[in-house]
Amino acid sequence: MVESFVESWRQRFGENPSEDVNELAPLLRHRCVRSYSAKPVPEELVAAVIGAAQSAATSSNLQLWSVISVQDKARREEIAAVADDQYQIRNAPWFFAFVADHHRLLQAAASCGEKAEGLDYAEFFIMSVIDAALAAERFVCAAETLGLGICYIGAMRNDPSEIKRILDLPDHTFCCFGMCLGWPEEPIKEHIKPRLGQEAVWFRETYGLNIPIEEYDARMKAFYESEKMRGDVTWSMRSGRRVDNHHLTGREVLKPWLDSQGFNKR
Amino acid sequence: MVESFVESWRQRFGENPSEDVNELAPLLRHRCVRSYSAKPVPEELVAAVIGAAQSAATSSNLQLWSVISVQDKARREEIAAVADDQYQIRNAPWFFAFVADHHRLLQAAASCGEKAEGLDYAEFFIMSVIDAALAAERFVCAAETLGLGICYIGAMRNDPSEIKRILDLPDHTFCCFGMCLGWPEEPIKEHIKPRLGQEAVWFRETYGLNIPIEEYDARMKAFYESEKMRGDVTWSMRSGRRVDNHHLTGREVLKPWLDSQGFNKR
Repeated sequence: MVESFVESWRQRFGENPSEDVNELAPLLRHRCVRSYSAKPVPEELVAAVIGAAQSAATSSNLQLWSVISVQDKARREEIAAVADDQYQIRNAPWFFAFVADHHRLLQAAASCGEKAEGLDYAEFFIMSVIDAALAAERFVCAAETLGLGICYIGAMRNDPSEIKRILDLPDHTFCCFGMCLGWPEEPIKEHIKPRLGQEAVWFRETYGLNIPIEEYDARMKAFYESEKMRGDVTWSMRSGRRVDNHHLTGREVLKPWLDSQGFNKR
Repeated sequence: MVESFVESWRQRFGENPSEDVNELAPLLRHRCVRSYSAKPVPEELVAAVIGAAQSAATSSNLQLWSVISVQDKARREEIAAVADDQYQIRNAPWFFAFVADHHRLLQAAASCGEKAEGLDYAEFFIMSVIDAALAAERFVCAAETLGLGICYIGAMRNDPSEIKRILDLPDHTFCCFGMCLGWPEEPIKEHIKPRLGQEAVWFRETYGLNIPIEEYDARMKAFYESEKMRGDVTWSMRSGRRVDNHHLTGREVLKPWLDSQGFNKR
């Protein structure tokens, strides 16, 4: 169940790595874990994982993010209702909302008579989303180092106003995504998912033309079949349909909504 | 030089952790490393680190990011000229540009007759920035696991048109940030930077009112003094000034520029 670096690489890329770097095996075998054992995750461990998250890089040390842990059952139900009724939101031992946060800095700046008007710009919206994502992924790496499993919940963006109400978020905050955390139920059900070949993602010196996708389309078609997902499509077909304008699940409101909250205004 | 979990926690938060979780020490002691030893970083190791980056979560497996390694000296000079002349851009053994990338998916979708019109929405701009950031931070955790050091370069956003020219980026791509990579020069010069107390970042159930900042302002004032940075300001004052509208270093163009590239249009 615990795959080596070489085995993880094979599952990820369909070939052998050029070098065995087994120290990186835990970072290679990430998957989204949706089924958790009943074993509790002590609060002290969560504090350590959040301490790692806080240690992630943050532009100019502004720390433009926050995290909210949601353990109340009724509140979890409300969140699940927004987020496609994903069962792991109800069942995970811990649930977190990751927030791009200008509110705390506005409060701190106001205490010194500073107006912090730059926060109106797209630049700082991007910066706070990046801060939240860097912190979250270091959280994930820390959790996985300890043997915990996680699942990101992008569907928190399905209804930003409702999430704002549920979490009592002030203006100048935006919940980018949620995250479930717990010990994976054994045996782990979720497979390592194949990714694009490295030559389709890593370019040298300048952006590459003629990006090789066909090889990956074939690998993913086989993966969908093995997972009993629709096997008659390729990654290109599936992904192209995912980003047509009929599958926005409420998120088409994000641009005006962010503006109304003081983000991305100019 | 290699701090334990407990020592890292003390430097980060000015107090002892409630539990010693020494497995997480490498993730807690992140700092931005700007001075690298001459020891080369083999390409096979870089490939493994990028393999870890590719293993990060990505919404709906869309993989809306790319990375470009830049080793050419003249190209590094051009990048440094955009990015505040930061010397580590010239000197790092490896330099990478992390790119939010809709181009590859548009190409893949077009090959199946899909228009991928949803990519116009802010939702997918946010998603690709998050994808790039999650991949980058897993890259960083992998690099640091191996003893490598990194430095993010947010100043790539100072002049997006010029970076587009230097890296030959197509429309529907956006360089979110750069990254330097190498073995840290010993002894490591950069200190672990104190962060906000956990009670100012981690809220329970709902967003917290009365966020405690004063304790951190005092800790950071002492840190600035010890670092021979201006010691007469607090974190709140310094950060408030950082986000006024006079320090955008060219980034005030980002909103219209992103629109012109096909991002964040509606």
